[in-house]
Amino acid sequence: MLKRRLFTPGPVPVPERVRLAMAPEIIHHRAPDFIPIFQHCKEGLQRIFQTEQPVLIFAASGTGAMNASVSNLLSPGDHALVVRGGKFGERWQEICDAYCVRTTCIDVEWGQAVDPARVGEALDANPDVKAVYLTASETSTCVRHPVREVVQAVRAREGERLVVVDGITAVGVYDIPMDAWDIDALVSGSQKAFMLPPGLAFLGLSPRAWRFQESATCPRFYFDVAAERSALEGDQTAWTPAVSLLMGLEEALKIILDEQGLEGTWRRTEALAHATREAMRALGLELYAPDAPSPAATAVVVPEGIDGPALRKLLKDELGFTTADGQGKAKGKIFRLAHLGYFDAFDTIAAVAAVEIALARLGYEFKTGEGVRTAVELLRDHA
Amino acid sequence: MLKRRLFTPGPVPVPERVRLAMAPEIIHHRAPDFIPIFQHCKEGLQRIFQTEQPVLIFAASGTGAMNASVSNLLSPGDHALVVRGGKFGERWQEICDAYCVRTTCIDVEWGQAVDPARVGEALDANPDVKAVYLTASETSTCVRHPVREVVQAVRAREGERLVVVDGITAVGVYDIPMDAWDIDALVSGSQKAFMLPPGLAFLGLSPRAWRFQESATCPRFYFDVAAERSALEGDQTAWTPAVSLLMGLEEALKIILDEQGLEGTWRRTEALAHATREAMRALGLELYAPDAPSPAATAVVVPEGIDGPALRKLLKDELGFTTADGQGKAKGKIFRLAHLGYFDAFDTIAAVAAVEIALARLGYEFKTGEGVRTAVELLRDHA
Repeated sequence: MLKRRLFTPGPVPVPERVRLAMAPEIIHHRAPDFIPIFQHCKEGLQRIFQTEQPVLIFAASGTGAMNASVSNLLSPGDHALVVRGGKFGERWQEICDAYCVRTTCIDVEWGQAVDPARVGEALDANPDVKAVYLTASETSTCVRHPVREVVQAVRAREGERLVVVDGITAVGVYDIPMDAWDIDALVSGSQKAFMLPPGLAFLGLSPRAWRFQESATCPRFYFDVAAERSALEGDQTAWTPAVSLLMGLEEALKIILDEQGLEGTWRRTEALAHATREAMRALGLELYAPDAPSPAATAVVVPEGIDGPALRKLLKDELGFTTADGQGKAKGKIFRLAHLGYFDAFDTIAAVAAVEIALARLGYEFKTGEGVRTAVELLRDHA
Repeated sequence: MLKRRLFTPGPVPVPERVRLAMAPEIIHHRAPDFIPIFQHCKEGLQRIFQTEQPVLIFAASGTGAMNASVSNLLSPGDHALVVRGGKFGERWQEICDAYCVRTTCIDVEWGQAVDPARVGEALDANPDVKAVYLTASETSTCVRHPVREVVQAVRAREGERLVVVDGITAVGVYDIPMDAWDIDALVSGSQKAFMLPPGLAFLGLSPRAWRFQESATCPRFYFDVAAERSALEGDQTAWTPAVSLLMGLEEALKIILDEQGLEGTWRRTEALAHATREAMRALGLELYAPDAPSPAATAVVVPEGIDGPALRKLLKDELGFTTADGQGKAKGKIFRLAHLGYFDAFDTIAAVAAVEIALARLGYEFKTGEGVRTAVELLRDHA
């Protein structure tokens, strides 16, 4: 009897009641029955994004909304500043490339957060930059970038510029208020804090972004935000929506907003992340992003003498825990444990125990139980 | 007790076993457990598309794959010929417009099929056309266009050109063999013959289309077919796939390919369509596409003296049958009944009965029971 436990930072486990909410007979998306479901989704997303602006819903994975955040806001030849410190920061640059948007990149060491002063300096050196693209929570390195301070650095300079934020593992994970922080475009996706299967992408746009959109000439059709906004006003999407996932979203929003509360969700996620980090340290392990960790997931450096892939294989095949490998240059060197979404204190304590047992079987030396003791201590008030 | 019955040509009812196949705990799309599911989907799609080429899978609705069929195959300024005889034919033109592809349109009267000779003439007059875009089954008018003959007309002319086909309500509905007919791009979507919720789009491309793709300069990122093809070779998608829908697709493919058989599916769909058409005629009703009806759905003209919206409202609110309205210029003038997907003889007989009862309540005069008698007679050997 090997129980399976998914600990990847997306997809995350989908609560049974959300899965059952997707199982009823399909309804037609242009029929009146669909309207209340869509309205609940629309309003709930605005609360989670902390915005008064409409949050668009695409049938796509998160990368689709990232694509939309370039093709709808800029024109070929425009200049963008991209903060790159992991696989998802790199993706912004690749999308800009695909749309012939010129980029200047701030390369941040993997595992580190960007210094907002560097953004300011880059803008001083490149005053023609029209948009700054960055990642709130860089899932590949488990770093949290200082979005608020980056926005402030952008606003402190003359000229109207957009700040476009990949919030795929940030929105609903911690406090990232779109309106209060003056973020112009904020992206998220269903298989993260929203506890759904992949297949929905979300995009909130500021009034400034809507103005940029009017003059942007990059071509777009499926990801046309103007078409989506006008459909949204009538409680519809421009193209056929992923109906079953929206039925699930309605249920997941009840859990997040009505039962647990948005702040309660942030607190729980942060507590799980903090407990995991301290538990790993108690085992003598090093964190990949010690200075600016994201609460979405924790990246742990595979210790000397231990084979990373073997560790993850043992965790999965012998203990039932699916963890995430490093990506790009961190592949094989770290393993990642998720905290965002449908995880609680006992899931987290079990994951720490699994890491202990796996490391012990591979011959790593440490004092058994120090990890779980730390986790239990820190999660005592969050269970 | 009002039982609900969905009779729209997409979404169509999702079989319970397919819905349950989507309900288990989510699995990670980069984990080994996902590989066999994806392989079954990949191979099954090739069988339904009747192609040896890879069929790409996008997390998107069908319009996403239509978008991909312009942005990956052409360059701004290229000339395309578009067959337009309904809302979905018009969509090809709109997508070309969005990507600055010049279009010449063949306007076909709604309810009629295109004469392939007109395609030939248009090519003779516009020899610089690089691609012909058409709709196999035009869902808005329930017309079936002669794809095979259009391809022949294109191939009979000098010059290498693509034929790009919206097969969203054709693939899996009737025989439209991609390779044998030499179709260059064939699009479909999950909520049609595949009996799934919306959220997956499929695209098969010929070797000729892959060559065009190499020199096409329209920008693309999320819908980049080259990235998808290379991911597909490793049993993956370029971006996070809609995992739960793929779990459902695997189950639906078992029904279509292993249990019912592809030819059995076509035969059943055609029998339901034929019986519906004859039943409507037996009630004295006129068909919107009498000469070239698609077996995907039947469009019935609302008779003189009857209010179309009132008829559909009565069918839905009093009898539980959700039917489709006309779209665009046919709005309010027709109603549409679906045959593609998860419908059988008894569903169809019930739908005919519902139309009889609704029309009778609205004061339309006809001999009660002539519709269902016709349907039972014609479906006797298909039940």
